[in-house]
Amino acid sequence: MELLKQKILNEGEVYPGNILKVDCFLNHQIDCNFLGEVGKEFHRLFKDEGVNKVLTIEASGIAIGAMVAQEFGCPLVFAKKTKTKNIAGDVYTTKVVSYTHDTAYDIMVSKRFLGEGDRVLIVDDFLAIGNALNGLIKLVEDSGAHLVGCGTVIEKGYQHGGDKLREKGIKVESLAIVEGMDADTGEIRFRD
Amino acid sequence: MELLKQKILNEGEVYPGNILKVDCFLNHQIDCNFLGEVGKEFHRLFKDEGVNKVLTIEASGIAIGAMVAQEFGCPLVFAKKTKTKNIAGDVYTTKVVSYTHDTAYDIMVSKRFLGEGDRVLIVDDFLAIGNALNGLIKLVEDSGAHLVGCGTVIEKGYQHGGDKLREKGIKVESLAIVEGMDADTGEIRFRD
Repeated sequence: MELLKQKILNEGEVYPGNILKVDCFLNHQIDCNFLGEVGKEFHRLFKDEGVNKVLTIEASGIAIGAMVAQEFGCPLVFAKKTKTKNIAGDVYTTKVVSYTHDTAYDIMVSKRFLGEGDRVLIVDDFLAIGNALNGLIKLVEDSGAHLVGCGTVIEKGYQHGGDKLREKGIKVESLAIVEGMDADTGEIRFRD
Repeated sequence: MELLKQKILNEGEVYPGNILKVDCFLNHQIDCNFLGEVGKEFHRLFKDEGVNKVLTIEASGIAIGAMVAQEFGCPLVFAKKTKTKNIAGDVYTTKVVSYTHDTAYDIMVSKRFLGEGDRVLIVDDFLAIGNALNGLIKLVEDSGAHLVGCGTVIEKGYQHGGDKLREKGIKVESLAIVEGMDADTGEIRFRD
């Protein structure tokens, strides 16, 4: 997605430790006009797949998921990272290790909102080694729903999480794949 | 907002402890078509106020905020509940006590995304005693931005957080104000 690549080049910042900061338009301050275009692009990429539910994970995936779900005219479900008083009853749950934050946490979705008959598109802001996506995929599998595919805004190609999912036969579409970054020069290289 | 009241009556569930569960359409599974209408309604209520930034708090406020920001054609900023590696530099921060979860947590917004010149509309899913809103208002005040007002989807009128803010002269618009609930009968009464 050319618009995204331009935004990454113009507004993204590269920090040591392979950190690409895009919090000015994607995951702290959010450019909602741009995000509307992201929603349309994911709809274009998955429109023939019979998607009837979009699944994401709090917090950065939610705005993206909302735009995508609006395009498909279907509900968005977001997996929660902590058990709250207000989630009653049974949940699907699994553990996710955060590469960025060096912690592990449980994610969960109420069984009422995911199950057989659902054709699920998973979306998220970033795909690196794929831990969050793999957790969401496990929730979909446990629920008996059908996984249509995964859409991520920015994939870090050099961490190969996306490639491993594609090797398993899962349709993974990333709107920009970063192949390398240089914190000294600020250079960002995309996969062709 | 009549559509919201009907959804609360048809899909909401009342639990002991004054808990109104609307996680089937508002804060776990999200009805994004409905949320588009919520965005339009908040735009109607605040369209003459020169809003150029929408502020909310993770996680349940984000989808609502995204729809509202899209209507205004302005950015959404969401306050984060935990410090992450990827928020560099200075932040505005304050402490919020969660009535629902009986815990306290810090919220923060990067100083790069809130400041003088911003005319801020705060939105959130629920308004009860108002702790989250008061925290967000403090961040706006600390930043030197102008608070235009607060829009919440569901206000629990009997907990008077909204009334206290209105007494201070803050414009608070809630799309439905619940005046009372009965967990035994499932009855939900709205303020006229």
